[in-house]
Amino acid sequence: MPITALIFIANGTEEMEFTIAYDTLTRAGIKCTSAFVGEGHQSTPSPATASCSRGVKIIADTTLESVEKSSNFDVLIVPGGAKGAETMSKSKDVQDLIRSQYDAKRIVGMICAGSLAALTSGLPSQPLTSHPSVTNQLDEKFEYRDDSVVVSGNLVTSRGPGTAFPFSLKIVEILLGKEKREEVVGPMVFPKGTI
Amino acid sequence: MPITALIFIANGTEEMEFTIAYDTLTRAGIKCTSAFVGEGHQSTPSPATASCSRGVKIIADTTLESVEKSSNFDVLIVPGGAKGAETMSKSKDVQDLIRSQYDAKRIVGMICAGSLAALTSGLPSQPLTSHPSVTNQLDEKFEYRDDSVVVSGNLVTSRGPGTAFPFSLKIVEILLGKEKREEVVGPMVFPKGTI
Repeated sequence: MPITALIFIANGTEEMEFTIAYDTLTRAGIKCTSAFVGEGHQSTPSPATASCSRGVKIIADTTLESVEKSSNFDVLIVPGGAKGAETMSKSKDVQDLIRSQYDAKRIVGMICAGSLAALTSGLPSQPLTSHPSVTNQLDEKFEYRDDSVVVSGNLVTSRGPGTAFPFSLKIVEILLGKEKREEVVGPMVFPKGTI
Repeated sequence: MPITALIFIANGTEEMEFTIAYDTLTRAGIKCTSAFVGEGHQSTPSPATASCSRGVKIIADTTLESVEKSSNFDVLIVPGGAKGAETMSKSKDVQDLIRSQYDAKRIVGMICAGSLAALTSGLPSQPLTSHPSVTNQLDEKFEYRDDSVVVSGNLVTSRGPGTAFPFSLKIVEILLGKEKREEVVGPMVFPKGTI
């Protein structure tokens, strides 16, 4: 059985954070599925296309409604982008998936404004980070940190597009080990000393 | 008049390189247009959707055929991804656009296997870099470098997904200055000392 990831996408999702997570995990051999999260009152476009935060239009692999409640993904990822993260963090279905993923001790990843979903899903107080623009919504409830990637048990959080590579590679490392991480890093040709 | 960018996309394009360029330039206020490059024998899907190298599906803003020959973009960008770069570098229309852009001394950006287009477009010998996997196709004709970003007059080249941020930010800096670059860098929250 391959390792699997479910990555949410919505209108307003930060397209670099989404794409870096999807692509990096796929390079590691993780089977990624993107799920379009609608805004409740609006019907899902067909194909399920997200207009992302800076205008890139991405077609999701499936929709949130089509994701089997019994599916067991090895990791769930909530990308940022203010509007997309708001849609996701307010979605009861997303909250339920995050909560059951977290309770089953499987990995939950949140980056940028995506970390707001930790609050709305009622995750317990613990170390966490986010985009600086939403710090004040999170630092009362959580042990807020300024690190690029924060690992707290099975919750992995990060800050923004600039930390999306370290975030994604940390998830690869947790799921598949340091050797796989290095195997993925090589062909991506990072500037020396930056990863 | 806004500063404008034309970014090519095709089946097999490296989705991180495409998205990082499009998003970062958009953050700088540059008006980005993505143009789908077909494989010649195949008809362009509608909407013009690229199946990228790791499975992300991106709808282009327009198609190469719809780009007015007389359009003057401030920068053209050729992303990598082996199959996408092959389609672009072999396209006569892409070659013509690159050549006239280059001759008019406007910026041409190429990253990863996208640098192959420098060869197929007949650009003059000069310093250049690329993804290491295509070095041996370029190092006879060009002054090959291992730097993350190489600026040679109006030709800007880079290496892979791991150098896509420095590449895009260098183009922002060339077109709009260091202050704009810093303005864009801030909210992206890079780990200290990595950009």
